[in-house]
Amino acid sequence: MIAQSIPDFIRTLNALSGILEKGEASAKARKIDPLVLTSARLAPDMFALARQVQIACDASKLGFARLSGIEAPKFEDTETTFEELQARIAKTIDFLRTVTAESLAGAEDKVVSFPAGPERVLKLKGRDFLYQWVMPNLYFHTTTTYNILRHNGVDVGKMDYLKGADLLP
Amino acid sequence: MIAQSIPDFIRTLNALSGILEKGEASAKARKIDPLVLTSARLAPDMFALARQVQIACDASKLGFARLSGIEAPKFEDTETTFEELQARIAKTIDFLRTVTAESLAGAEDKVVSFPAGPERVLKLKGRDFLYQWVMPNLYFHTTTTYNILRHNGVDVGKMDYLKGADLLP
Repeated sequence: MIAQSIPDFIRTLNALSGILEKGEASAKARKIDPLVLTSARLAPDMFALARQVQIACDASKLGFARLSGIEAPKFEDTETTFEELQARIAKTIDFLRTVTAESLAGAEDKVVSFPAGPERVLKLKGRDFLYQWVMPNLYFHTTTTYNILRHNGVDVGKMDYLKGADLLP
Repeated sequence: MIAQSIPDFIRTLNALSGILEKGEASAKARKIDPLVLTSARLAPDMFALARQVQIACDASKLGFARLSGIEAPKFEDTETTFEELQARIAKTIDFLRTVTAESLAGAEDKVVSFPAGPERVLKLKGRDFLYQWVMPNLYFHTTTTYNILRHNGVDVGKMDYLKGADLLP
């Protein structure tokens, strides 16, 4: 069941990549410095767009590292440009592709410990970790990235977020 | 597997309710007409907060109606106040509680047809409908509600969104 959700993460990260492409194209068309968009935020004490993308990637990467026991690659959190953010998404998807169903055997019932903020460690059962923590985090930071761009006049729509569903004919 | 996700929806709708409570309390404390917040939006051509909440409820309600074959209650989309939005969330949760595991037997593989916009009908396999459409929609509109309030100075944090996870001691 847990392995079945990997394509959901890859699809959403690809949708995030498409949303960022629209952001970059919009900056170019409107002659706005792209860094204005990647550093935009919805409130002064909220993370800027680049950090939202980093966290969407890390939720996915660290989530499946913890569930599978496979070590995740380290990213330095230095991205500021659209190009660098796209590279981080691509590296995250590459990592998710290395997580096999075998490495996730039994993950549903194992206890996963993970940090929540700098001073707190939480524990959830694998199934709950995936569906009550990792997946809501992915959608939270993807939607917030979308909302930051939408608020800044980028022409994105909900189908950019839902893109890639396995529609039947 | 599909029945297992109903608590995820109920938990997130409860989190949405808590986020709205903070919005209402903030309006009161700052002497702002609460309707200013329920009609706030992040871009002029984006839905206002009240509509975001209505859609979060409908994604959940119609999603499980289609998967289970149980008829969903009709809501009139007339909510404008925090109190009315809270009532809609409560009615949605009440409906989700009537959806039994038996009514979802075989739902994973059945073909679900559903409208996407006024002129388009899409089809997905039940499992994909849940995880590629219904659940991402719930998180999208819950996060957007959160972002609208956050942008308007309401003191909400990500734990308000993730609230209710089945943490282990």
